[in-house]
Amino acid sequence: MESLLSDGIRETPPSFVRGILKAASEPDIISFAGGLPNPVSFPQEEMLVSMERIVRTYGSSVFQYSVTAGLPQLREAIARRYCEKYGLQIGADNVLITTGSQQALDLIGKVFLNKKDGIVVEKPTYLAAIQAFAMSQPKFHAVELTEEGLDLEQLAEALQRKVKFIYLIPNFQNPTGLTYSAQSRMQIYEMLRGRDVVLIEDDPYGELRFDGENLPYIGAGRLENSILLGTFSKTVTPGMRVGFLISQNKELLKYLSIAKEAGDLHTNIFAQYLIWDYLQNNDYEMHIAKIKDLYRKQAAAMIDAMKHYFPDGVQYTRPNGGMFLWVTLPEGMRAMSLFPRALEKKVAFVPGDPFYTDRKDTNTMRLNYTNADCGTIREGIRRLGECICAVNG
Amino acid sequence: MESLLSDGIRETPPSFVRGILKAASEPDIISFAGGLPNPVSFPQEEMLVSMERIVRTYGSSVFQYSVTAGLPQLREAIARRYCEKYGLQIGADNVLITTGSQQALDLIGKVFLNKKDGIVVEKPTYLAAIQAFAMSQPKFHAVELTEEGLDLEQLAEALQRKVKFIYLIPNFQNPTGLTYSAQSRMQIYEMLRGRDVVLIEDDPYGELRFDGENLPYIGAGRLENSILLGTFSKTVTPGMRVGFLISQNKELLKYLSIAKEAGDLHTNIFAQYLIWDYLQNNDYEMHIAKIKDLYRKQAAAMIDAMKHYFPDGVQYTRPNGGMFLWVTLPEGMRAMSLFPRALEKKVAFVPGDPFYTDRKDTNTMRLNYTNADCGTIREGIRRLGECICAVNG
Repeated sequence: MESLLSDGIRETPPSFVRGILKAASEPDIISFAGGLPNPVSFPQEEMLVSMERIVRTYGSSVFQYSVTAGLPQLREAIARRYCEKYGLQIGADNVLITTGSQQALDLIGKVFLNKKDGIVVEKPTYLAAIQAFAMSQPKFHAVELTEEGLDLEQLAEALQRKVKFIYLIPNFQNPTGLTYSAQSRMQIYEMLRGRDVVLIEDDPYGELRFDGENLPYIGAGRLENSILLGTFSKTVTPGMRVGFLISQNKELLKYLSIAKEAGDLHTNIFAQYLIWDYLQNNDYEMHIAKIKDLYRKQAAAMIDAMKHYFPDGVQYTRPNGGMFLWVTLPEGMRAMSLFPRALEKKVAFVPGDPFYTDRKDTNTMRLNYTNADCGTIREGIRRLGECICAVNG
Repeated sequence: MESLLSDGIRETPPSFVRGILKAASEPDIISFAGGLPNPVSFPQEEMLVSMERIVRTYGSSVFQYSVTAGLPQLREAIARRYCEKYGLQIGADNVLITTGSQQALDLIGKVFLNKKDGIVVEKPTYLAAIQAFAMSQPKFHAVELTEEGLDLEQLAEALQRKVKFIYLIPNFQNPTGLTYSAQSRMQIYEMLRGRDVVLIEDDPYGELRFDGENLPYIGAGRLENSILLGTFSKTVTPGMRVGFLISQNKELLKYLSIAKEAGDLHTNIFAQYLIWDYLQNNDYEMHIAKIKDLYRKQAAAMIDAMKHYFPDGVQYTRPNGGMFLWVTLPEGMRAMSLFPRALEKKVAFVPGDPFYTDRKDTNTMRLNYTNADCGTIREGIRRLGECICAVNG
């Protein structure tokens, strides 16, 4: 059987985090490993009302096959939101509904990548993006993240090679929680303008800014070959798998749509009606405000606890939104070795390694603060602090 | 931008049928073009009851991220059904939930195919399978379908080349409506046994046999490297996009699962709970019997009308189940040229061309009989008969 496998699947990294999540899902473990939104973000009762309403109103349409691009009224609502909130000038035709943002990554890999094509990613970057792109066996050019955004010298160097696209997560980046500054965004825009390269801005967390002001996108609305990814996973429900991508370039959308048709025909149409109806009939801003209040408190609780329980020499980011922060252990300490010790103490995290395309045995780790209450977060950080101190000896 | 596209997307046939479906969706057109189940197959009221029950019982779990392989109790229910109905010896671990059967085709392409790898398909075959596999740029070896199954000489010849997998639709094939005989199944099994090649049996319509007895699968349950595809799209709801694949080979399932994780993390978990709950709490067999009664009548109405309205020299299959039949026009007549004339007469079908990997200008067409009542079917066939007679001179 082995000889029948494709090169792509052989080079796709195994499901490292899924393994970790399994270990971390034991009931008595405090897990900072996953990326689960707090269930407070699921408006259960309101969605039950919407379910009944869409079945009564649209009947069999919510259960039948549907069009690949997505429910027109949902695409329209998304376009309107991005026009109002970010000043984009787009319509429903600029929006393609995807089966979660993960499918958008899959489609992008399919539409752009031949084997050995160059792509630029952040260092570190979202591990499931590495997985999705790896299927096409590209050459990864990883550019170091800084507190301000990207290392621009490294970016300039990477751009001298032939690259198909640049994949960035400018807001509350996964895994680091870092946000690109306004200046860094402008500089990257200037570097990309006029170049035959696609900019992909993945923005699953943009709605979840709990400190400071929204910043403009790097390319959305001003670079023709740019694609913006969004999702309802962090603000309404991840289980329904409804994401979207936005582009000014309709030719590009046509190819992405062909890839989507070949991939799953269309996204669950009931889920699309449901989210559209929910948006129409509820105060979405107030709902998001509630989520942000919670995450602000939980992030603060985690940072407070780290100040208290982590030894000197441990560094960490202070996110203004999103779901994660990033810890750098003292030089020479391996997060991967810390992991089994932490599990023994009944606390879990994701070691940094799978977020890199070119590094192993790193001293970094990702912590999620959205899915535990403040007291649990404090206790988990206390246990983790103990492990770090023990190893740090 | 053009230079940034992958070879795969360039070689994926454009969305021919979607274009046709759009033309065919005008309200006054009688369409035999789509592949839409009759809405009678959507148990709307029962699903509303299930929706409320799963939200009340499982709360946030039905809205949260979930595992890639799928809801364990749904996988278990599927395994049990195939054990009871087809004598397979499998458990939940042999089942992977997919986002419709279309995603299963996508995963299979990813897991097995390098550029130029050989695969065997039927001639004609399901056009969206051609699309899904084309993304990996394989070499298609198309083997002629007969009334009994495959042309075995052609199959033997194709197998002498190196092929990764064989993709077959043994029950009420799409597009032809043909079903492989028991003898043909056995012969194909004998030819594949011991060979290092994967057999894919796509069976979306197997539940919808309205005449005769179920026949055993070719490979499922007895060829180690075989994969069986199934779906709830034709029996409960296609809009929810819940399909599945079954294999004895757990190593193979592991790779398919990695590809799925990279593709969309997991299938809509609400939809999985919903279908599982529906199966638990309703008489699924009686529901399917109702669908079969309807389709039996509608298929008969179409065949009766064709006898009456089609000129001599037009041939057609007589399916024992499923959703489609296949018409062969007199030699030299092009179905593609007939299409615009039929649209003028307000009737639509799918010309045969997109179902072939190596033929154009064919005299064949696919007709769907599941989504119109008997009177409408009769009127549509009358119009189509007129067009054929006019062209036939």
